[in-house]
Amino acid sequence: MMKKIVLTGAQGRLGQELRAPLAEMCHALLSTDIKEAPKDLAPNESYVQADLAQMDQVEALIQGAEMVVHFGAIPDEAPFEELLGPNYIGAYTVWEAARRHGVRRIVYASSIHAVGLEPTAEGPALTNRHRPDTFYGLSKCFAEDMARMYWEKTGLEAVCLRIMSCTPEPENTRALGTWLSYGDLVRLVRAAVTTPTTGFALAWGVSANDRAPVTNAEAAFLGYRPQDNAEDWAEKFLAAAKTPDPSDLAQMRLGGPFARVPLGESGVEAIRKMTAGD
Amino acid sequence: MMKKIVLTGAQGRLGQELRAPLAEMCHALLSTDIKEAPKDLAPNESYVQADLAQMDQVEALIQGAEMVVHFGAIPDEAPFEELLGPNYIGAYTVWEAARRHGVRRIVYASSIHAVGLEPTAEGPALTNRHRPDTFYGLSKCFAEDMARMYWEKTGLEAVCLRIMSCTPEPENTRALGTWLSYGDLVRLVRAAVTTPTTGFALAWGVSANDRAPVTNAEAAFLGYRPQDNAEDWAEKFLAAAKTPDPSDLAQMRLGGPFARVPLGESGVEAIRKMTAGD
Amino acid sequence: MMKKIVLTGAQGRLGQELRAPLAEMCHALLSTDIKEAPKDLAPNESYVQADLAQMDQVEALIQGAEMVVHFGAIPDEAPFEELLGPNYIGAYTVWEAARRHGVRRIVYASSIHAVGLEPTAEGPALTNRHRPDTFYGLSKCFAEDMARMYWEKTGLEAVCLRIMSCTPEPENTRALGTWLSYGDLVRLVRAAVTTPTTGFALAWGVSANDRAPVTNAEAAFLGYRPQDNAEDWAEKFLAAAKTPDPSDLAQMRLGGPFARVPLGESGVEAIRKMTAGD
Amino acid sequence: MMKKIVLTGAQGRLGQELRAPLAEMCHALLSTDIKEAPKDLAPNESYVQADLAQMDQVEALIQGAEMVVHFGAIPDEAPFEELLGPNYIGAYTVWEAARRHGVRRIVYASSIHAVGLEPTAEGPALTNRHRPDTFYGLSKCFAEDMARMYWEKTGLEAVCLRIMSCTPEPENTRALGTWLSYGDLVRLVRAAVTTPTTGFALAWGVSANDRAPVTNAEAAFLGYRPQDNAEDWAEKFLAAAKTPDPSDLAQMRLGGPFARVPLGESGVEAIRKMTAGD
Amino acid sequence: MMKKIVLTGAQGRLGQELRAPLAEMCHALLSTDIKEAPKDLAPNESYVQADLAQMDQVEALIQGAEMVVHFGAIPDEAPFEELLGPNYIGAYTVWEAARRHGVRRIVYASSIHAVGLEPTAEGPALTNRHRPDTFYGLSKCFAEDMARMYWEKTGLEAVCLRIMSCTPEPENTRALGTWLSYGDLVRLVRAAVTTPTTGFALAWGVSANDRAPVTNAEAAFLGYRPQDNAEDWAEKFLAAAKTPDPSDLAQMRLGGPFARVPLGESGVEAIRKMTAGD
Amino acid sequence: MMKKIVLTGAQGRLGQELRAPLAEMCHALLSTDIKEAPKDLAPNESYVQADLAQMDQVEALIQGAEMVVHFGAIPDEAPFEELLGPNYIGAYTVWEAARRHGVRRIVYASSIHAVGLEPTAEGPALTNRHRPDTFYGLSKCFAEDMARMYWEKTGLEAVCLRIMSCTPEPENTRALGTWLSYGDLVRLVRAAVTTPTTGFALAWGVSANDRAPVTNAEAAFLGYRPQDNAEDWAEKFLAAAKTPDPSDLAQMRLGGPFARVPLGESGVEAIRKMTAGD
Repeated sequence: MMKKIVLTGAQGRLGQELRAPLAEMCHALLSTDIKEAPKDLAPNESYVQADLAQMDQVEALIQGAEMVVHFGAIPDEAPFEELLGPNYIGAYTVWEAARRHGVRRIVYASSIHAVGLEPTAEGPALTNRHRPDTFYGLSKCFAEDMARMYWEKTGLEAVCLRIMSCTPEPENTRALGTWLSYGDLVRLVRAAVTTPTTGFALAWGVSANDRAPVTNAEAAFLGYRPQDNAEDWAEKFLAAAKTPDPSDLAQMRLGGPFARVPLGESGVEAIRKMTAGD
Repeated sequence: MMKKIVLTGAQGRLGQELRAPLAEMCHALLSTDIKEAPKDLAPNESYVQADLAQMDQVEALIQGAEMVVHFGAIPDEAPFEELLGPNYIGAYTVWEAARRHGVRRIVYASSIHAVGLEPTAEGPALTNRHRPDTFYGLSKCFAEDMARMYWEKTGLEAVCLRIMSCTPEPENTRALGTWLSYGDLVRLVRAAVTTPTTGFALAWGVSANDRAPVTNAEAAFLGYRPQDNAEDWAEKFLAAAKTPDPSDLAQMRLGGPFARVPLGESGVEAIRKMTAGD
Repeated sequence: MMKKIVLTGAQGRLGQELRAPLAEMCHALLSTDIKEAPKDLAPNESYVQADLAQMDQVEALIQGAEMVVHFGAIPDEAPFEELLGPNYIGAYTVWEAARRHGVRRIVYASSIHAVGLEPTAEGPALTNRHRPDTFYGLSKCFAEDMARMYWEKTGLEAVCLRIMSCTPEPENTRALGTWLSYGDLVRLVRAAVTTPTTGFALAWGVSANDRAPVTNAEAAFLGYRPQDNAEDWAEKFLAAAKTPDPSDLAQMRLGGPFARVPLGESGVEAIRKMTAGD
Repeated sequence: MMKKIVLTGAQGRLGQELRAPLAEMCHALLSTDIKEAPKDLAPNESYVQADLAQMDQVEALIQGAEMVVHFGAIPDEAPFEELLGPNYIGAYTVWEAARRHGVRRIVYASSIHAVGLEPTAEGPALTNRHRPDTFYGLSKCFAEDMARMYWEKTGLEAVCLRIMSCTPEPENTRALGTWLSYGDLVRLVRAAVTTPTTGFALAWGVSANDRAPVTNAEAAFLGYRPQDNAEDWAEKFLAAAKTPDPSDLAQMRLGGPFARVPLGESGVEAIRKMTAGD
Repeated sequence: MMKKIVLTGAQGRLGQELRAPLAEMCHALLSTDIKEAPKDLAPNESYVQADLAQMDQVEALIQGAEMVVHFGAIPDEAPFEELLGPNYIGAYTVWEAARRHGVRRIVYASSIHAVGLEPTAEGPALTNRHRPDTFYGLSKCFAEDMARMYWEKTGLEAVCLRIMSCTPEPENTRALGTWLSYGDLVRLVRAAVTTPTTGFALAWGVSANDRAPVTNAEAAFLGYRPQDNAEDWAEKFLAAAKTPDPSDLAQMRLGGPFARVPLGESGVEAIRKMTAGD
Repeated sequence: MMKKIVLTGAQGRLGQELRAPLAEMCHALLSTDIKEAPKDLAPNESYVQADLAQMDQVEALIQGAEMVVHFGAIPDEAPFEELLGPNYIGAYTVWEAARRHGVRRIVYASSIHAVGLEPTAEGPALTNRHRPDTFYGLSKCFAEDMARMYWEKTGLEAVCLRIMSCTPEPENTRALGTWLSYGDLVRLVRAAVTTPTTGFALAWGVSANDRAPVTNAEAAFLGYRPQDNAEDWAEKFLAAAKTPDPSDLAQMRLGGPFARVPLGESGVEAIRKMTAGD
């Protein structure tokens, strides 16, 4: 059992799912977010409100931790200028602070959007080079490359989870392939935390969907075994599916709507509209 | 639910298995074959006798269809001259007519014989280049290449199913690996029909056999999950297996007997003899 | 020195360049074409007017030959119906007749258009799977696949030359990369004819252009060493180049104009217009 | 059912597990080892004490056999001088005697240590080149290469089983990924023996562990379906795991402790100490 | 001939080499740097002092340009905090401003340090995933990934030149392989500027050194033909070479000294010392 | 300049070519062979008659050496029993003695026969797995695998030269592709000796032949630039070439005659006859 784990982004949608399970894996869980504290802290959980883009705040959090589960960031496309602090600088401060304080491993919420322009029907290997679809995805490329460098140069381990569509239920046709259930999210993070040694590793964050377009065979040593399957929702979504359009990148690329929208603010707006009904 | 599906080769052995399930996936199923009509048409099924090598006949069939399930062809090795009409020209007319009439997708009965000279013990990737074992297999290479071209140049989708040994039961030792049950054939065609967007895709037509020499990992987005396993017949065939001969291409290559026989008519004859007892 | 070589397409533009050099490599050169005989036959050259789609005519030509240099076909995009005889059936009759009469090897005028939809900036490996851009290119895919099959099943050798832009001089910007000079064409055919054993082999038909987008490293055993370089024409074409358009397949894919045009007759017409000034 | 199988190393730890199952697959099982005979011979089992490094002794054993299950060798790292006889020369005599006497196939106890320096988190493909971690592993490389040569030049088949950690129960953290249960060992050997034709084939000897770092997809035609899973022991070992050290080759490479120890006698000693508690 | 080219980093060491040649390729060259203007402006060259991290300044420069040759950045390892403005944000502003103003292509000074941890003796393919050795290298990974995204989503072309060791003469043993002469730098930039269409492309910035550890075969369509060879300095450096140390990353990885030094300020200092004599 | 180099096999055909050039690269060259001393020792050359299979003799030689150029072995196919001492055990003693005495690097005469069963027309990559054609070739596989292990576990460097056909002049048709001139042998060994750091490296030993079936691109960092070309002998051998036979492994595989002959003594005899006239 670990002494101390730090969870960033603890007040985000996924972070909230992870607090309880992580609290069970360690003596002390330190949760942090830029938002105010939750009211339901576990007995062995403490909370510190912090800005990840500030090195001194991050160093203070990380002292004495064995592992950081780094989920803190803007979780969607946004203008580069907005992402710069939380997603780029925030990733740097976490890794650098972790190195300075001897943290053993960072488990990182990467994203499918790091390779979102790969064709769905030719699901990419984990080791393909990056192919981001948005500035959000680009921030994940940045952090994955940085993670590999820190591992190779300083021995700081990292498991980068390329989360696909993590929601309580599948929300659209695309999610029949890309859904990651909350239960499987927890299984995946647990595998990433408990595997004794990992070095630098990548893994797809996806449930055991019949239509999952990628495979975790290359990350098999992590022992992640998802148990949910979006196919239970297939009838509903296939019946309601709009006319397929093979020239639509949102339908043909792993990143879905992110693959189609323009870069910049108009794209952010477009995604919001699209994901509602897609 | 689709408005209209056209099924070619509806009176062939596999076509007959597909009529009922396809009738359930659309408002109107138009079945066609060069043979006379079946007597058991479904309520929403119509039938037209036609020669696929005649463009005007094919165009007439295809008008208004959203999908063509193209199984019409000579289903075995034959002299090139005999295959030319039904297998080569017939494939062209189907694709070209589909393009002219705005069909969305063709689901095509390709065959393992498009790569029949690949060694069984090194089961080829779906994206390996072609390696046909017969003129029959060569006609599948031709259609697959044409399908990719129509997709890339006109947006007409295609799912090419490389059917292995599709029979009610496994019929010989080789089929312990290559069997495709009728039930799994239907599952595979249903996946190919109902997946919202496919672009150009290939898939192996094989059941969940313990000894299946290839994997559909690269076509995972189709969500095809076979349920049958030829291993239930293993004892019977292994007990009766003739002396293995590692220099025999029929035993060492994916195409089985097709891989060994001479080209041309003598080969056709040889296959007939061989498959009886193999 | 070979006893007899048969050259098909001898009255075509490239065939005419090959007659004299081939006549020097054998005791008897039999030239053939669907057109009338040339007037300048070499002393050891004979000529027979023939239709390659007719097996009896092809068999008569091929008797006693050691090698066939098969350049006879429609050399450009055309409707499938027009290509069927000369390019598809014609290829079959040549291979089958060659097998029947014990010919040792066929040197075949394949084409870049067998993979014309590959991106120029990621020049494909010789062993990539096919990606035709036209019905013309598709006929080359057909013949290459057939050639591999005949080699593997009957021991008939084949060297398939994927000719790029074979003209007296480079004719447009694209040809700075794809040009094959007449001199290098002869060098390439000579290498394909004189190499003692070849099995089934592919080679790019391209000169030693600075901008050649593909490499013959995989066919190095043929010893083809081109000597011409389209760069000598670079200044002329770069100065006159129209505004580049990265969304134009004609500029981004190996097949050039063929990659952009629609399939069928309108495409044929479009290529004619385009190649004039491109 | 086979007439005669020869089992070498029959008195070794794994050989003893194989005697009974092999006896059921043939009319006569001839077991051999350099040790004295076991007392519990099956009715159709005979035993001959022999030194595999002596060609005449091996030839005498192998006469009339259809298959040799070759497990006889020093099963651990040792100085090269000690391994030379049983592991190197012994492998040669078995293959050469098998060839002389028309044996159809050798099923060989290869080892993960033939590729023991491959990183665990990038589990190697079966067809990667060798990367031995010890002189013991090097002897497996030698035999695998020899096996491929005998197959290609003489038609003698071979299935090389790269056994990972074959013990009654998983014995340490690493074995959560690498364990091969005795039951699965038998399943694997049975698949290797009963598959009608195999040519030269490799397969990983590993159970259906959640954390298995390699996959047998490339050897799927063998139909090996493991049934045991080391994950049942996960809690025990993860709880007791020592501090992970990512710079420790024993933790980061497939070969485990073998990957870390020095070559030669000091390494042998070091492994003994390590495997006790690892 | 182009109307307007913008050269960033014009007062840097390499930028100064590029001003004159670029001035010859266009009607108007706009040079910019954070330093003061040079005194030797070409007749068709103008100069604006600007900070690339300021979008408004960059937009003002780029208006009306067809191409940007982007060499402006800190050219060496530095703390992440120092690199953030010029190398990360500066790259973003250049690409985004270029998109807003319809620039056709960015020619970018990337660096070998984007893959500096790749082993020299296994020289990486251009399409391998990133493997940065420093924060400096990481900034190149960031820009290359961003460049691919802008190309795929907006049609803005990019040629990323992975410059190795660009100096007047080779300066140490490693440079016998990695040297890029000033003459070849100009040839490379000219190829990147004048090639009519490029899409997103990578190229190694290296001369025709006998010992060059990488090849530009995959970028052949650019027509870059280097003419200098560091081997002319071989005798001098081999004679003076210090004792090789195969455990030294500075000797075994593409990035040389960058591959060995610690991250952060101490690394910057270490590189300064090392490169003097290496 | 090196202090001491040891050359084994100094009285062999290739060893004799290497003595003078190696003497120029070091202060002291110690030559050794199982034969008697040569009469023409260089001033800085000494000679010791020794049996490489005897560890004590090898250790005595190697003391104080920086590099071993290991060419001592039976240079042709022979029964395994004969090769065991000089080629297998001899390689072990050299590597182990080198390790014990701190030698920096072994330059090893490996051979094309380590991959002699690879098809010539698909020339293998240097990193393909082994595919030996004879027991001689198998001994090279053994030594290459051992060399990689010593490098990875002890830091002892190795450059394995896969020598093809090293003779004063090309001797047969196959050698038009596989010839290594004596001059280029010296260039290759010099590159292997003088490159400052190499780790474990492989390189093809072949001249700059037009028809060379393999490329040294993957070993480019060694800076080996061959200068001779077997094509100067092409006319002679092509004119006299016997009827090609594509089913003849001696013509279709890299190993030439070795690929065809039976294993064991009859093969040795067959090679002798064949190489005379091939």
